[in-house]
Amino acid sequence: MERIQPFHVMALLARARELEAAGRSVVHMEIGEPDFPSPEPIVEAGRAALAAGHTHYTPAAGLPELRAAIAGFYASRYGATVDPQRVVVTPGASGALQLVLSVLVNPGARVLLTDPGYPCNRNFVHLVDGLPVSVPVSADDGYQLSAARARELWTPETAAMLVASPANPTGAVLNEAQLRALAEVAHGGGGRLIVDEIYHGLSYGIDDVTALAVSDQVFVINSFSKYFGMTGWRLGWVVAPQAYVADLEKLAQNLFLSAPTPAQYAALTAFEPATIALLEERRQAFRERRDYLLPALRELGFGIPQAPAGAFYLYADCSRFTDDSFAFARDLLEQSGVAITPGIDFGTHLPERHVRFAYTTGMDQLRDGIARLRAYLG
Amino acid sequence: MERIQPFHVMALLARARELEAAGRSVVHMEIGEPDFPSPEPIVEAGRAALAAGHTHYTPAAGLPELRAAIAGFYASRYGATVDPQRVVVTPGASGALQLVLSVLVNPGARVLLTDPGYPCNRNFVHLVDGLPVSVPVSADDGYQLSAARARELWTPETAAMLVASPANPTGAVLNEAQLRALAEVAHGGGGRLIVDEIYHGLSYGIDDVTALAVSDQVFVINSFSKYFGMTGWRLGWVVAPQAYVADLEKLAQNLFLSAPTPAQYAALTAFEPATIALLEERRQAFRERRDYLLPALRELGFGIPQAPAGAFYLYADCSRFTDDSFAFARDLLEQSGVAITPGIDFGTHLPERHVRFAYTTGMDQLRDGIARLRAYLG
Repeated sequence: MERIQPFHVMALLARARELEAAGRSVVHMEIGEPDFPSPEPIVEAGRAALAAGHTHYTPAAGLPELRAAIAGFYASRYGATVDPQRVVVTPGASGALQLVLSVLVNPGARVLLTDPGYPCNRNFVHLVDGLPVSVPVSADDGYQLSAARARELWTPETAAMLVASPANPTGAVLNEAQLRALAEVAHGGGGRLIVDEIYHGLSYGIDDVTALAVSDQVFVINSFSKYFGMTGWRLGWVVAPQAYVADLEKLAQNLFLSAPTPAQYAALTAFEPATIALLEERRQAFRERRDYLLPALRELGFGIPQAPAGAFYLYADCSRFTDDSFAFARDLLEQSGVAITPGIDFGTHLPERHVRFAYTTGMDQLRDGIARLRAYLG
Repeated sequence: MERIQPFHVMALLARARELEAAGRSVVHMEIGEPDFPSPEPIVEAGRAALAAGHTHYTPAAGLPELRAAIAGFYASRYGATVDPQRVVVTPGASGALQLVLSVLVNPGARVLLTDPGYPCNRNFVHLVDGLPVSVPVSADDGYQLSAARARELWTPETAAMLVASPANPTGAVLNEAQLRALAEVAHGGGGRLIVDEIYHGLSYGIDDVTALAVSDQVFVINSFSKYFGMTGWRLGWVVAPQAYVADLEKLAQNLFLSAPTPAQYAALTAFEPATIALLEERRQAFRERRDYLLPALRELGFGIPQAPAGAFYLYADCSRFTDDSFAFARDLLEQSGVAITPGIDFGTHLPERHVRFAYTTGMDQLRDGIARLRAYLG
């Protein structure tokens, strides 16, 4: 327990709620979930599932028709062939990550992770008594783990590496060649590549590449939370190499029994054309927000060397203003009512000079936030 | 992974589905969830929550109003005072058990468990690299861990003991004096008592006693699955000693983010008088089933020394018919289309001479099952 960090942003979020309760307005640019509600076809399908009495457990690996629909999505969107038997439906990507690390990581085994990265990742490695090896990444390497670096760091004790594309907090993506090279390093070292693709669909001006198109020996984690707008339903999935499916299923039986049933029925509509059309409109809205926020932050003096191609975050160097990004975020909230996430939530590589801006709020709010920032910094 | 057992009943269930697909009828007495759908007020509240757009994350410990409602239920049903801050809402009791064992059990620490018992319990202990210590229990000790036995087995390395009341698979309950004595042993030994109360509300002719009425230093795990009929929604809770709540919340943030949101809103109606009235009718239906099935099985020659006071199971000695209960269950399914659970799913103490009958199906099905059993055994 001692090795597991709380999210520091939670303290800021709690303070923001206090300020709001006291009548202050706060611009929220700290929140890691889409502001949009779940798409109407999904909501309606959830309501219909409840009315139809779909309130019992499903099989541990998920509804067969949902596993088939997910496999079908890999065919239609990516042209990738995935056997539905390789899809295990989970309570969120969190559940998927726990399953995968539990089957891959023995006590003491090493797992390579990027720093900065999603904070829970290293905590999940700790939970299975593995050793998270944080690899510093920066704008110089596109905020991603390179195959060359992975090869240098790989040891016989390394069980896996976990990368995300698009990544949190940087929005950085991996292309097909990079994914292929990482898979080769992992497989050559007798280990596994795990790719977190939960921000797939939220990429701008590029086509997402799934690691499943590169190899059927990688683990891919995804979720209905971000692109599909189903955060609170708690539904994700993992696509695993065939040889691991029985173990994942056994573990899912024990850990979860099954993913939430109404959510699974609702998600059957997630891949339908009407839903996808709505989600693509939302993707465009996110892109417009990014295209507003990125130059506005740069103009104020934040360092964002590369335009991130995905997710809904901008990871910004704030060293022109502070050498303590947590104090900066706290003061910005107190004095100007703008909530952002300090770098410390994403690792130990220069967190004090970075903050994360999330564009999970509307354009009016973002403009208000920039105006407040300008006044605060000026 | 190697220490984690699959549920053997799953193989029987799969075979039962095959037989049904081939046109055979099967009487299901193997299933560990109520046959009733979720109560209508809960379903309607879930549908309303979705229509109202409640599809985002909640706080990690759950909706404040749900935590308050759960605390209120302890007051109204048990006369026990529980601070809502001590309630952490989880994805099912499975999530609650994982949280509790993660905060209590360091690698190598011992956890006392009854054998027979719920099979996932020892797997959860393995997952946190603890050492499950199975304590054989039998009809002689009411199928429960006695304080005297716990005291004998307690060592400095023992972190906790986990008991269930009513218990799966035996339906055995613990009274207030027994709970108090167990809490004293645990606290006297510098450890903790964890009480699984997920079958509370499904007890017959007795009043449930919560361990929270005995001590505010115990951990109580409960769920909306069984009595409240919400299995597929995946919603449970833990009530913890105040000193542990911050750690549980930190871990819940990392492991789950939050419990499913529509389920949490739906569960707000679970404690309302109209819902409780419906649930009490169902409790009566379960009691009638037990009161039919228990003498019928005894008459056929199954050994059930004590009438279980709770849950919806009968744990029966089948040694008059077989010395291999798994083969017995398999043959019974193949030849007579009756599905039951072999003892091996509940531990290593005489599993080969026990089977579990679940009365999670209607009276007509139970009568049919008994007729088939009579023909099979005759």
